[in-house]
Amino acid sequence: MHLLSPKGFVAGAVHAGIKSTKKNDVGLLICDAPIPATTAAVFTTNKVFAAPVKIGREHIAASNGRLRGVVVNSGNANACTGAQGDRDARRMCSLTAMQVGCDPIQVLPCSTGIIGHLMPMQKIERGIVGAASKLGSSESHALQFADAILTTDTKRKAASTRIKIGKTQITVAGVCKGSGMIGPRMSLGMPPHATMLAFLTTDADIPAATLRRVLASSADRSFNAVTVDDHTSTNDTAVILASGMSGATVRSAHEVARFASALNEVCKSLAYQIAADGEGATKVVRIEVRGARTQSDANSIARAIANSPLVKCAMNGNDPNWGRIVSAAGLCGADFDPNRATLWLQGTKVFHRGRPVLFNAAKVSRSLDAKEVVVDLACNLAKSHATVWTCDLSKDYVTINADYHT
Amino acid sequence: MHLLSPKGFVAGAVHAGIKSTKKNDVGLLICDAPIPATTAAVFTTNKVFAAPVKIGREHIAASNGRLRGVVVNSGNANACTGAQGDRDARRMCSLTAMQVGCDPIQVLPCSTGIIGHLMPMQKIERGIVGAASKLGSSESHALQFADAILTTDTKRKAASTRIKIGKTQITVAGVCKGSGMIGPRMSLGMPPHATMLAFLTTDADIPAATLRRVLASSADRSFNAVTVDDHTSTNDTAVILASGMSGATVRSAHEVARFASALNEVCKSLAYQIAADGEGATKVVRIEVRGARTQSDANSIARAIANSPLVKCAMNGNDPNWGRIVSAAGLCGADFDPNRATLWLQGTKVFHRGRPVLFNAAKVSRSLDAKEVVVDLACNLAKSHATVWTCDLSKDYVTINADYHT
Repeated sequence: MHLLSPKGFVAGAVHAGIKSTKKNDVGLLICDAPIPATTAAVFTTNKVFAAPVKIGREHIAASNGRLRGVVVNSGNANACTGAQGDRDARRMCSLTAMQVGCDPIQVLPCSTGIIGHLMPMQKIERGIVGAASKLGSSESHALQFADAILTTDTKRKAASTRIKIGKTQITVAGVCKGSGMIGPRMSLGMPPHATMLAFLTTDADIPAATLRRVLASSADRSFNAVTVDDHTSTNDTAVILASGMSGATVRSAHEVARFASALNEVCKSLAYQIAADGEGATKVVRIEVRGARTQSDANSIARAIANSPLVKCAMNGNDPNWGRIVSAAGLCGADFDPNRATLWLQGTKVFHRGRPVLFNAAKVSRSLDAKEVVVDLACNLAKSHATVWTCDLSKDYVTINADYHT
Repeated sequence: MHLLSPKGFVAGAVHAGIKSTKKNDVGLLICDAPIPATTAAVFTTNKVFAAPVKIGREHIAASNGRLRGVVVNSGNANACTGAQGDRDARRMCSLTAMQVGCDPIQVLPCSTGIIGHLMPMQKIERGIVGAASKLGSSESHALQFADAILTTDTKRKAASTRIKIGKTQITVAGVCKGSGMIGPRMSLGMPPHATMLAFLTTDADIPAATLRRVLASSADRSFNAVTVDDHTSTNDTAVILASGMSGATVRSAHEVARFASALNEVCKSLAYQIAADGEGATKVVRIEVRGARTQSDANSIARAIANSPLVKCAMNGNDPNWGRIVSAAGLCGADFDPNRATLWLQGTKVFHRGRPVLFNAAKVSRSLDAKEVVVDLACNLAKSHATVWTCDLSKDYVTINADYHT
């Protein structure tokens, strides 16, 4: 299964020369069903949002959430580019609309890359024409598109699942990008925290309002729960296109719950892949905060732990330095009482109700040398729970980010 | 001038074997004036605060802010150590009190080092007796004490100044430590953000309530405006002891303002030295945020820029990647409009009202290769201003923190 497995979608991508590498950097994902796709999107909550985010919001509203597709480029974020940036994002949509035969407001533009440079529009234009000439629905087309959205990512990111609604099979699939500037906080209204782009497809028939609600909820539990460097990007966008071509309609509460569960599965897999491919990452660190006073407290504590450079460096060195974790929990302003809390590292209890627990440090250190490390903190205050995924902080993160621009 | 230049203070320090290096790790700073020193202290706002912070707060309250001195150790934070930790912190005070002849509640305990290990009390006890036997008021004594509080610091940190109150000269002096786990948020009531310890002395005679107010204000503009890794420590403490031995009394509004100005100067110098000696730092980055809507907004924006790993890595690589700075300003929730903002890097305008400014990137990059880099952001919304000091993020930071514990 792949991004184009849901019925009613085609994609195409080319290398247009925006990225200095030879990799694809312009892609189109188009719904070729008789009527446009029901669409929902969440955008970054950064007050500095890129032109494509601004235009994308406009187009979602103006089209009543019925899109023909998305046009995306990597290598340039079209952020902090003023009125020219807005014009360039609109032009990406009108060029795409001309190629596929729709209204420009039925196209969502997405960009990722360097901030503050005007778009190389000649290359973009050639790229859109080229990508349109290559549209197709094979797995190869899906992979070409998935590659076109990457920047510092070292791996392509994709996920998909199938469920039955009644007796009809539907497919939910997605691809995403994200490696640095990752700390998405996306919402339906306004912008998140990274450049994170996710493109989701389904052939379910689902009302626009329901799709919006389900996407927002899934994003909170997946993309918005990933942080690499807690730097909310100007461009973060997650969009889902529903072609309706499976013939299955998602209407009843039960059907919506089943669809939401499938979408959660895909989004969580994609989010996990972002953490695993975080810039310089050698491992995923999963933070589980249980028994917090409120959901907001649980989220704050989990994020404070996930974003502490001291915790992240300790994870890089397989150092069971749990004091950094407990102190991170206490610094974020959330209700937290170390005298009621218990902390486990990879299943080993290291701190219990205000006091250290004797443990075999060498053994726990060895257990931290893994592809996934679980930090499990029980607050024992109430019942709220949050999961946040992050990665370790390595010297490679510094190497990657100390010289990106020049 | 040095920590013991203000009249009425002696200090002593020894290597008691708590740190694995041969460096001093237990120190005493004692007021030997006829009556105890008027004392004010600010402590970490972390909900996970160390035993010495808990006992220190108690002693400041119980003694009515009149202390004989402080006992400090490095190498062990006495944090997350439960009831035994409390007993150990109290015992440090009673041992000191026995040595110098005062009530244990007239002693403030401070610790810094690893979290979650019980204190090696035999070594501490020997250290306190040893330090008490070495008390003196020479510069050498001041330096010995300054060294006893260091952990990952590479440099001793000290500052002092002299002013006249009326016709009488008074001295304000201080030493501090701090390199990692630095993001102090100290307040009079509750705890800040790093292990940062600062010990300040003066021979002015100043009422306790005034001293508290002036210290809190100075801390906000200095220690609380420094961040290395934004990880508020369990132990952060800044304390000032006023011996009154100069004979000059600080009473009138004018005298208080002059004293506050002297204290600000000393605290800012110490805070700057912390940023300059941040773990792995190659330079100080000074963030100036002007024209913000409110003071809280100015602080939030400055801290968001200062704490962004992407900004800090760019500074390490002399990379004028200003998009990271502008996007950091937008992500913290403070009121910010990129279309009204202007940004300068080392005096070169790089972004103006929503749009990039053409500049010589190679030249600006060369200008970033300096001991201090100034990031100057004008929000053009209102009149609030904040200054925050941080440092760059280097590979050495990762090296230092990936293997500290084991």
